[in-house]
Amino acid sequence: MLSKVLVANRGEIALRVIRACRELGVRSVAVYSTADADSLHRMLADEAVCIGPPPAQSSYLNVPAIVSAAELTGADAIHPGYGFLAENARFAEICARVGIKFIGPSAEVISTMGDKAAARETAKRAGVPITPGSEGLCASASEVREIGKRFGYPLVVKASAGGGGKGMRVVRSESEVEGAFREASREAGAAFGDGSLYVEKFLEELRHIEIQVLGDAHGGSYAFPERDCSVQRRYQKLIEESPAPGLPEKHREGLMESAKKLVDSLGYEGAGTVEFVYSGGEFYFIEMNTRLQVEHPVTEMVSGVDLVAEQLRVAAGEKLDLPEGYERPEGHAMEFRINAEDPKRNFLPQAGNVEFYNPPGGPGVRVDSHLYAGYRVPPNYDSLLAKLIVHGKDRPVALARGARALDEFAISGLETTLPLHLAVLEDEEFRRGGVPTRFLDGRALTSDGGIPRLS
Amino acid sequence: MLSKVLVANRGEIALRVIRACRELGVRSVAVYSTADADSLHRMLADEAVCIGPPPAQSSYLNVPAIVSAAELTGADAIHPGYGFLAENARFAEICARVGIKFIGPSAEVISTMGDKAAARETAKRAGVPITPGSEGLCASASEVREIGKRFGYPLVVKASAGGGGKGMRVVRSESEVEGAFREASREAGAAFGDGSLYVEKFLEELRHIEIQVLGDAHGGSYAFPERDCSVQRRYQKLIEESPAPGLPEKHREGLMESAKKLVDSLGYEGAGTVEFVYSGGEFYFIEMNTRLQVEHPVTEMVSGVDLVAEQLRVAAGEKLDLPEGYERPEGHAMEFRINAEDPKRNFLPQAGNVEFYNPPGGPGVRVDSHLYAGYRVPPNYDSLLAKLIVHGKDRPVALARGARALDEFAISGLETTLPLHLAVLEDEEFRRGGVPTRFLDGRALTSDGGIPRLS
Repeated sequence: MLSKVLVANRGEIALRVIRACRELGVRSVAVYSTADADSLHRMLADEAVCIGPPPAQSSYLNVPAIVSAAELTGADAIHPGYGFLAENARFAEICARVGIKFIGPSAEVISTMGDKAAARETAKRAGVPITPGSEGLCASASEVREIGKRFGYPLVVKASAGGGGKGMRVVRSESEVEGAFREASREAGAAFGDGSLYVEKFLEELRHIEIQVLGDAHGGSYAFPERDCSVQRRYQKLIEESPAPGLPEKHREGLMESAKKLVDSLGYEGAGTVEFVYSGGEFYFIEMNTRLQVEHPVTEMVSGVDLVAEQLRVAAGEKLDLPEGYERPEGHAMEFRINAEDPKRNFLPQAGNVEFYNPPGGPGVRVDSHLYAGYRVPPNYDSLLAKLIVHGKDRPVALARGARALDEFAISGLETTLPLHLAVLEDEEFRRGGVPTRFLDGRALTSDGGIPRLS
Repeated sequence: MLSKVLVANRGEIALRVIRACRELGVRSVAVYSTADADSLHRMLADEAVCIGPPPAQSSYLNVPAIVSAAELTGADAIHPGYGFLAENARFAEICARVGIKFIGPSAEVISTMGDKAAARETAKRAGVPITPGSEGLCASASEVREIGKRFGYPLVVKASAGGGGKGMRVVRSESEVEGAFREASREAGAAFGDGSLYVEKFLEELRHIEIQVLGDAHGGSYAFPERDCSVQRRYQKLIEESPAPGLPEKHREGLMESAKKLVDSLGYEGAGTVEFVYSGGEFYFIEMNTRLQVEHPVTEMVSGVDLVAEQLRVAAGEKLDLPEGYERPEGHAMEFRINAEDPKRNFLPQAGNVEFYNPPGGPGVRVDSHLYAGYRVPPNYDSLLAKLIVHGKDRPVALARGARALDEFAISGLETTLPLHLAVLEDEEFRRGGVPTRFLDGRALTSDGGIPRLS
């Protein structure tokens, strides 16, 4: 096993990794910015090193400071969590160069899958269905028009280096191509330093379904039952569940097989997620995230597998050996992201003191959070305060348990997305299951907690 | 389904029942003493009624006040939790008389199983192994001597109405019979108003193993995999786990079959526990608890069954319909009772303000507790503050997870049994598994957290 792991992250995911280390008898090193001096990840790790001032560039993205902290404390591996340096190929390369194990796939794989057009090509070559569209990059608006002639409109142009909806434009007719191409390229250039674009058929009514994968250095690979992450707001996932409501068994198998094919073609090592859109009974590859995801607990609840412990085992060079039955979802799990945002004021980010904090308990309830009563939420980082994960023998039990636990969950001192989740749980469309990603579009939380369609 | 349930209890178990009600869409009514005005069970129930001053006799044992509260709020059933009125046959009878469903078995069954000698007889008739000893009550010391001649010494004389070690004496030779009989009878008379005794072979090296059962009004009955509750201090359980370490499969089946035979012979309705001693590869019936037990979550974690929800369904007259596989333990679960007692000062009870409260989170961790930061622990009731339940794919994972979660668990302002649990988890004998009930005898927690054998 590894002997000491530096956790290059903060918040709930840093705690998650520290917990896994402790359970495996691996020492943990926290790094923290001066804004996080009172954070639980600093307190619960075996050692802690301050790596700089609050701005992420100066601390959680400060590669020299993090690598120095690892060398200083004698850590033999670095777990990047998600966000920050988790998909930074250069960081993975530097770790390799100084002889510290980066817990994740190789820099080369990170790099390939981080380039959307290259990822699309890789998936296609591995025999994974991709949405109809350009083969590789689209150099000009006229190339987009040719694809429009071949597959019809609407299309969507996307930044190859993109994510989170930046450098993305929907094109509904040939006359819109020129403007959309120009704008998307400019936006992508500004956001990612790379204006290159590719184009795909735009699917109007789709669900976001993804497959968790694990691979080891001995060629072993596993694909888990799917997660449905269609409840989103501006491309940010809010609720995730497993299994996906109403997904036919043959599609589950198809998704898992496709993900496994891709992983095997990459010789993938560690945890990752292959994301698909699911529309009209067909699924198409979107992208692969070469890291642990926020919503990984949903898979842990239905598979009984501790994904972070498996990441650490893989990083230590062990062979994966998952228990029988991991590939069949046991019961139903749902995750609610509790963010420091005011859903009644267009999700205005919140910061400040947590005055009272009472996480829910009882059967089928898991809370992953770095909060405590008296904790000050700094304004510098992402807004995730807590993940509430519920598990029950079926979806109706998970829905009832989710409502019960959200109702019990008390966080005072700042506004959170708790009331939004309660409203979603009462929505008939959501309760039926299988909502599309546009489910929350044009909705806002009303003062009585409703989420009426605004358009 | 029931429409409204009054919860005649306090603390974590009141919360447990309120949570189950909420998840089933059943309204809940809390009752509380003036000492519990700021309690979570009062806050989380749909309605709450104050039933009297702090002494239990005036509130949680105050039958007229509780029945009035049920009538006043229109509750159609009462859940007694554990302790207080949970095994009070007269209370069950009064409920039946006023047309309120008592959530538990009939007054007659409670009464029979509450009389130890009658319970022993009932078990014997049902074909359940009982320890060699008297058939029914022992009227005199000379009857005890006859049993000594037949089965040999040591024997133990026990109060028929007893519990918690009161009115109990170990007899190691014929010369001790006279004195032990007299003392036990006097003590039982003083404690229970009933000095009648029975006698059994005394087993020196034994484990406490029990079987959770459920029965419905339609003759359906289920026995669950065993719980091992051998880690005790003065007959109070401290740690419970399932499955029992090293228990051969045929003994598991034997225990479950025996428990089911007893339940079927009683036409038992609701949740209950059949307790056994396990010694030298044999098991013998001790007693049956006709109620939900503190340690029920251990069974929930390995079976996936929500026992309190099933209690409510049975009370509503539904037929039990448990999912396949409930009878095979899935993984390993352990419960740690966090009490307000100082393990370094002979378990001196503690009361006072909880200044800081941080329950553990993450995978495989469940907390059932009524604590919150700022809560005042009143001096009037039992010392249970929280139950930490951990679940893992096997016992080593559960042990590591237990240590990790206990280490994270922060309760400041008063002393608790947290350090005792951490010390037990480091003990080699406990880690091997299968410790006898005398495991903690003659031990005390040292200032460095150790638990050396004192004798």
